[in-house]
Amino acid sequence: MSPVSIVLGAGGFIGRHVSRALARQGATVFGLGHGPLSAVEKRQWGLSRWIDADVGVVPLTELLAGRPLAALIHCAGGSAVARSYVEPLVDFRRSVDSTAEVLEFARTLPGETPRVVLASSAAVYGDQGDVDITEASACSPISPYGFHKLAAEHLCTSYARFFAVPVTVVRLFSVYGEGLRKQLLWDACLRFQRGEPEFFGTGHELRDWIHVDDAAALLCAAASAPQARFALYNGGHEQATTRELLTTLGRLFDGSPAPVFTGNAHTGNPRRLTADCDHARHQLGWRPQMMLAEGLRRYADWFKTAPST
Amino acid sequence: MSPVSIVLGAGGFIGRHVSRALARQGATVFGLGHGPLSAVEKRQWGLSRWIDADVGVVPLTELLAGRPLAALIHCAGGSAVARSYVEPLVDFRRSVDSTAEVLEFARTLPGETPRVVLASSAAVYGDQGDVDITEASACSPISPYGFHKLAAEHLCTSYARFFAVPVTVVRLFSVYGEGLRKQLLWDACLRFQRGEPEFFGTGHELRDWIHVDDAAALLCAAASAPQARFALYNGGHEQATTRELLTTLGRLFDGSPAPVFTGNAHTGNPRRLTADCDHARHQLGWRPQMMLAEGLRRYADWFKTAPST
Repeated sequence: MSPVSIVLGAGGFIGRHVSRALARQGATVFGLGHGPLSAVEKRQWGLSRWIDADVGVVPLTELLAGRPLAALIHCAGGSAVARSYVEPLVDFRRSVDSTAEVLEFARTLPGETPRVVLASSAAVYGDQGDVDITEASACSPISPYGFHKLAAEHLCTSYARFFAVPVTVVRLFSVYGEGLRKQLLWDACLRFQRGEPEFFGTGHELRDWIHVDDAAALLCAAASAPQARFALYNGGHEQATTRELLTTLGRLFDGSPAPVFTGNAHTGNPRRLTADCDHARHQLGWRPQMMLAEGLRRYADWFKTAPST
Repeated sequence: MSPVSIVLGAGGFIGRHVSRALARQGATVFGLGHGPLSAVEKRQWGLSRWIDADVGVVPLTELLAGRPLAALIHCAGGSAVARSYVEPLVDFRRSVDSTAEVLEFARTLPGETPRVVLASSAAVYGDQGDVDITEASACSPISPYGFHKLAAEHLCTSYARFFAVPVTVVRLFSVYGEGLRKQLLWDACLRFQRGEPEFFGTGHELRDWIHVDDAAALLCAAASAPQARFALYNGGHEQATTRELLTTLGRLFDGSPAPVFTGNAHTGNPRRLTADCDHARHQLGWRPQMMLAEGLRRYADWFKTAPST
């Protein structure tokens, strides 16, 4: 039997793209996540098997069914800063408990220990000021979400150090792409469509945008490339202020006025969050492909034809 | 109704002494922990109510039964470095998941938010070299146990910062006392009794010994004293090398030879782990009472008359 790769959170935005990218590379991909997935969806995202469950040693054992395992790619963590303020325990469980279970599953598998890849977040850095952040920066999260991602990373460090589980942590910056029905771009498209493009913040916030296909390619490279037992990469691509981003996006909506900013800052969001990605480029040979203007055009095209639910 | 204090892990070594100390101060004490507790044991340790459950929001709600709550003292975490290498997920759940549940319970209680006191460990520091460690030292744990305690502390920081839950973390050093049927002193007494006092290590390891009554007094002070929203204290008392400690203990066993050391180092144990405790002395007015020689004498006396199980 050929080894399989397991994607945790394979029904989510990033997990789906990771599954499809792995399948396109010829891998057999099993997925775990919440909710039912139709046969069509499974085929669409390259999933040979799917299990509807919380991340845990027992469902993972059932899913794998004794097959040899190449890698575990963990995309099932908490996915929203704002929600972590409302339901911190839910966010904790999604980000931290799930990581503990994945690591324990990897540790206790018979035979060679598969690599665990954690899709973490730039939120672990907090506010680092006016710099491109390197992986060596001291982490100082400023939201429960960021604290939980960092706790998950610390578990990875612990399992790599004490139990020889090979782990790669990828700190993704601002991931976007067709199919994402939340966060800034989704919200912005709704406002542009209504002709009322008013936004929180000053417009001077600086973010590092990475298309989900490039993020998926990075996670796949992190799962398969030879690396140190514990490896850590930033995943970003192109920097833009919120004003630049939304001005570009707004032009794709005929007749919409230019974006307006309220000047209020969001809690838990630093002014600048941009990546130094040299490490992933040099170590994994990973190169993001999608230019921001093209990515935004695709996003707007998808939005205009997307079913409303 | 007068406010109650809840002790998590109230059936464990430290939790029992905390419960009794609180009750002696006149508090009404409810306890949660694993296993049955007889009416005699409940009375002995000052517990008005007891619930046999994992730490969780639901059993805590049931235990409190709508009473006003003064403080939550969390002594239910993992308690053994060595075991954390064998069952890391169990240790993680005991230390980290339980802390997440306690904090969430405190956050979601109606009315004034009670203070959460976490019994953490000097293991969060790792090997800091030849110094008395202050609370400002950068943490760098060297065992899964230490990683999990630190993750629990980070959750406390997060809940204090983002949800205004008042939290005090107490990093206990080497806690000992009558009734502790594990760890170095228990093992040493067994060896002295057999007349074969051979020990791992070099004998030059330096530890900071604190009697469980003093540790309990510190945790009680941390639960009631006015403090910053997030407060952090070391809890140690008297430094001794392993050789000094065991030599003193061995003299309490008639006819036992002096201790011998194999020279092997334990994994996950630094050579020196000693506290600077000025912060707790100044801020809480806490003063440990039990001198080490007297504490060892009591321990040996208890050991010699303790039932074998």
